[in-house]
Amino acid sequence: MASRRRIGEFELIARYFAPLARTFAGAGGLESDNAYLPADGRHDIAVKTDTIVSGVHFLDDESPDRVAAKALRVCLSDLAAGGAKPLAYQLSLALPKGWQERWVAGFARGLAADQRRYGIVLCGGDTVVTPGALTVTITAFGQVPRGKGLGRGGARAGDDLWASGTIGDAALGLRAARGALKAIGARDRKVLEDRYRLPRPRNALGSRLIGIARAAADVSDGLLADAGHIAATSRLAVHIERERVPLSTAARRALIVDPALWADVLGGGDDYELVIAVAPRRARALQEAARQARVKVTRIGRFAEGRGVHLTAGGRAAAVARAGYVHF
Amino acid sequence: MASRRRIGEFELIARYFAPLARTFAGAGGLESDNAYLPADGRHDIAVKTDTIVSGVHFLDDESPDRVAAKALRVCLSDLAAGGAKPLAYQLSLALPKGWQERWVAGFARGLAADQRRYGIVLCGGDTVVTPGALTVTITAFGQVPRGKGLGRGGARAGDDLWASGTIGDAALGLRAARGALKAIGARDRKVLEDRYRLPRPRNALGSRLIGIARAAADVSDGLLADAGHIAATSRLAVHIERERVPLSTAARRALIVDPALWADVLGGGDDYELVIAVAPRRARALQEAARQARVKVTRIGRFAEGRGVHLTAGGRAAAVARAGYVHF
Repeated sequence: MASRRRIGEFELIARYFAPLARTFAGAGGLESDNAYLPADGRHDIAVKTDTIVSGVHFLDDESPDRVAAKALRVCLSDLAAGGAKPLAYQLSLALPKGWQERWVAGFARGLAADQRRYGIVLCGGDTVVTPGALTVTITAFGQVPRGKGLGRGGARAGDDLWASGTIGDAALGLRAARGALKAIGARDRKVLEDRYRLPRPRNALGSRLIGIARAAADVSDGLLADAGHIAATSRLAVHIERERVPLSTAARRALIVDPALWADVLGGGDDYELVIAVAPRRARALQEAARQARVKVTRIGRFAEGRGVHLTAGGRAAAVARAGYVHF
Repeated sequence: MASRRRIGEFELIARYFAPLARTFAGAGGLESDNAYLPADGRHDIAVKTDTIVSGVHFLDDESPDRVAAKALRVCLSDLAAGGAKPLAYQLSLALPKGWQERWVAGFARGLAADQRRYGIVLCGGDTVVTPGALTVTITAFGQVPRGKGLGRGGARAGDDLWASGTIGDAALGLRAARGALKAIGARDRKVLEDRYRLPRPRNALGSRLIGIARAAADVSDGLLADAGHIAATSRLAVHIERERVPLSTAARRALIVDPALWADVLGGGDDYELVIAVAPRRARALQEAARQARVKVTRIGRFAEGRGVHLTAGGRAAAVARAGYVHF
């Protein structure tokens, strides 16, 4: 969680780490989900590292196969945002002192299942014991056509903003997992909780976005925050219409009971959907790609000259209450 | 530290993680320091991930620039063992809850200094806050000629075993850092302690080993353990003559005072020297490469048919007391 006395993750990266990456073109100033290493003449290798810590990024009681799935899928989601086809990954596993072999066996089973599901394979890593919390770091590699990997920069004024799937389920699911949302049915709570516990990265869609999208990001910090990251990196404003934001039936029911939950839906993290900047003339190509990937896409706003994230609800400006869920 | 009730790191990898890497040729069954991803027609990208945890892999009171250097250099050492030229790296930094911006500034300064020293550059990563110990994971990328990256397999019976630099300083240095080794002078203790705190990976030598060495590893688990890893992966025995093992003046003095320290010298980790399998006819080429890299190399043994690590001292078989320092 963020402390007001200290700088946040984005400032920390901008101030201390971006200068270290200045000379590496494929790092894109650390402003996008992926870095790109030159591979063969026709491809780049997209690279992304993500760390998840017990009690911070997943619940302490989470099953080992779901911890494995979450660790792998948050990286796969970044590859999807880059338009990259999953290739291989490195795993660093820091086990707490009292680790059990049975836990590792379950963790490995979770990895094996997702390797088959997403067509990715382990290629190395490190295993250590820590006096602290269980920590999993995955560095995932994907393949993109040379120079075509997507980032947060590249959107242009007039581009539409699209979102895949449904937004806000994971943030509501975290509430459900913590025993809240009692006003909706148990089945709805279960649906939402599953969305929090087990991301479903949009790789089938992501790898079809090359040549269609101008920029993309995955929704890990929250819809407004991640759409805002595209806008900021592309030096534009983004305008979002709240009533266009795609919702699951469960989320819709929760919002009817308590409209204050909109702050969670728009500002909560962990959806692992994609937000995509697309020129209006490529709308049909995007919809065809989504059809092939069996994912719904919804146009929820547009990019324009200016700065910032602008939300409207019922045609009126609405407050952007939270800048995004802050894990940090 | 290892617990007798649980399996060790190598068994854990063999049992649970190697099966996940079976279909990726460049992973080499997770038996070597690096994995290799196909890059352009003339090169592969060597990849290595290493994690260091406060209080486990470095002292809790270590300065941030030295933590940065250690994290980067343990990975650079693996690239050296693979014969790879450093290219770029990803960084995952898990900061403890009470982190200070000043610490991060020092850490970034340490990275910047080593980026210049080793010709490597940051290309991405992740920053999180952990309820546990400060943890740094680095995934380093290096470049090797296509299909030529070195691993632990590939040594043949009759090959000589060579070691770079001096062996055992880091293990003695850890003792010195903990206030032991009072029988030798303060200056010697300082020299040894510096070797522990600040690895000096042999990248200048490593990148010259392509076409000369048949196999290589870095000395991170200890001389006997790491030479033994080459032997085991190459399905050979390795014979090492203790009196040939290259020692620093400080280590030599410590051994005169207390010969029991041989167990540390041969079995202690963190030297980050290279052990190299070289055909006898390539000895002069190796020595020329070492001269160019301004590193000493010493022939300390040979590989033969059979299995295991065989140590002689004064022409007699000596006990292999420890299988290597176990961080795990």
